[in-house]
Amino acid sequence: MARRGEWTGESLAAGVRSGDKRALARAITLVENSDPLAYQLVRDLYPETGRAYTVGITGPPGVGKSTLIASLIRHVRAAGRTVGVISVDPSSPFSKGALLGDRIRLSDHFLDPDVFIRSMGTRGHLGGLAETTLQAMLILDASGKDVLFVETVGAGQSEVEVIGIADTIVLVLMPGSGDSVQALKAGIMEIPDVIAINKMDHPAAKTMLNEVRSVLSLDRERSWRPPIVLTEAARDENIAELWEKVEQHRAHLESEGLLEERRRKNLAGEVFAVASGRAKSHLEQAVEGDPELRRVLDAVQARELDPLTAVREILQKVFHVDGEDRS
Amino acid sequence: MARRGEWTGESLAAGVRSGDKRALARAITLVENSDPLAYQLVRDLYPETGRAYTVGITGPPGVGKSTLIASLIRHVRAAGRTVGVISVDPSSPFSKGALLGDRIRLSDHFLDPDVFIRSMGTRGHLGGLAETTLQAMLILDASGKDVLFVETVGAGQSEVEVIGIADTIVLVLMPGSGDSVQALKAGIMEIPDVIAINKMDHPAAKTMLNEVRSVLSLDRERSWRPPIVLTEAARDENIAELWEKVEQHRAHLESEGLLEERRRKNLAGEVFAVASGRAKSHLEQAVEGDPELRRVLDAVQARELDPLTAVREILQKVFHVDGEDRS
Repeated sequence: MARRGEWTGESLAAGVRSGDKRALARAITLVENSDPLAYQLVRDLYPETGRAYTVGITGPPGVGKSTLIASLIRHVRAAGRTVGVISVDPSSPFSKGALLGDRIRLSDHFLDPDVFIRSMGTRGHLGGLAETTLQAMLILDASGKDVLFVETVGAGQSEVEVIGIADTIVLVLMPGSGDSVQALKAGIMEIPDVIAINKMDHPAAKTMLNEVRSVLSLDRERSWRPPIVLTEAARDENIAELWEKVEQHRAHLESEGLLEERRRKNLAGEVFAVASGRAKSHLEQAVEGDPELRRVLDAVQARELDPLTAVREILQKVFHVDGEDRS
Repeated sequence: MARRGEWTGESLAAGVRSGDKRALARAITLVENSDPLAYQLVRDLYPETGRAYTVGITGPPGVGKSTLIASLIRHVRAAGRTVGVISVDPSSPFSKGALLGDRIRLSDHFLDPDVFIRSMGTRGHLGGLAETTLQAMLILDASGKDVLFVETVGAGQSEVEVIGIADTIVLVLMPGSGDSVQALKAGIMEIPDVIAINKMDHPAAKTMLNEVRSVLSLDRERSWRPPIVLTEAARDENIAELWEKVEQHRAHLESEGLLEERRRKNLAGEVFAVASGRAKSHLEQAVEGDPELRRVLDAVQARELDPLTAVREILQKVFHVDGEDRS
């Protein structure tokens, strides 16, 4: 039995199942380190997952996502439900850059035995961020948490993969989020399930509300029309209303039989994202460690070998496939 | 010799070399269709590439990137230099959503034999957007164009890969681009080489300038401090100044011996991006066409098989690798 400090695989699994915070922290650290023990642990626990409801909180930096999550935790805890949070926003107060006020607000939750909050670095994970986040979420799910939040920043591809596991996605904006509104309008950003416009005290909040509403009104074909809620997370304002919209979205998914379908799609998407991430890091490591493949890159630089032929040679050597499209 | 309509591989290569617009259009269509003739063509032309100077124009939708490019084309053409443009912004007026004014402004360039503009769809390319864009850029480079522009939207991962080939990257913002400023501040968006704040007539333009300037001032360690230019592309205002900054960046790269280094890094990055894209589409097609691999996904959905074990089985079957990290 592999030992990692004081933990054995068995004691760690038992600790995770009972929701022990030290066990959860240790297990997620092992996930971050791509430790084989983490892989075994999630494999063993996986049949016990799928019970938590997972809410993705996304949006540009600075809109108050972490404060909103802190406020949502308070609301959900008041109803007696247990909570897990994974934050993959490097600028989140959950990690370092916390203002004093935020830290005080969050410290209540850090002391609560039924709340587990973990911030993940966004770099250096060999298996990719999608993989690390997925494994960490599965551990929190297996620990019996009722509600899981996953926080990501922005709307880029890696963020989509991270948040791809969520049952309900909440996009958080604030007055001044002009780029995000344009991205929604241009169809470049996916339409979320619920939208929160935070910092509702700002004089431009109503204008932002109308802009977002008019963007959403262009799309009349959805069975679920994303509700928009004005919030002031720093004062817990309209957080109950926001949570109600999340619950309504969940009820919508369940009543239409869409939850199972969404989870199937999400899981398949995650498997692809993780497999692609692993294939990519496998490629990088192969080229790194192989003088012949490094010479292929040198030949591209010298304009002797074109990039696509280089790609074919690398895929052939590393994956034994011809790398051709099968169109 | 493969024939595609009226073109043979030889006549197409000759047409591209002479900058013939019909040949360029045909060649890029073949690239978009992942046609083997396109692959041969780029392979043959590759030794003749590397002469064009490549400028990436990126930024959120709606800031006026296409209008800015149209204005830059006018400026560069006045100096007698030839131009190629690849736009991968689905919301760009170069593709469909053009306002009448934009179309009139651009139509001059469409008639100019020394300007070639092509808009690419952002979906459905089997080899991935990075691959299609790279091949198209190489074709324009081989056609002898002096300056190439590549336009992308946003700051997500696929956009980074598309713009990864550029010698100089210009980020275009406008008053109201609050999310992008926050993303720069949080270190989530890469610092570009030059910043244009377009729509300088807007009352908030100066505020935006000061915000961006204060974000950039936090980083004192760069050898190149990104200049910020206020522009009004729709009236060609300050476009000469913007182009001067691009030229200064180029001179900086050349004087410090950094251009070769950047191109080496860019090309290696593109090869990885294309290889990863191909590996991903290879994976998707393999699972699609293989009932056994589809059953693996079903087992994940049924919580019988954990996602990471599924990933390992898929990588093992498709690429004959164990999919383990080699940390």
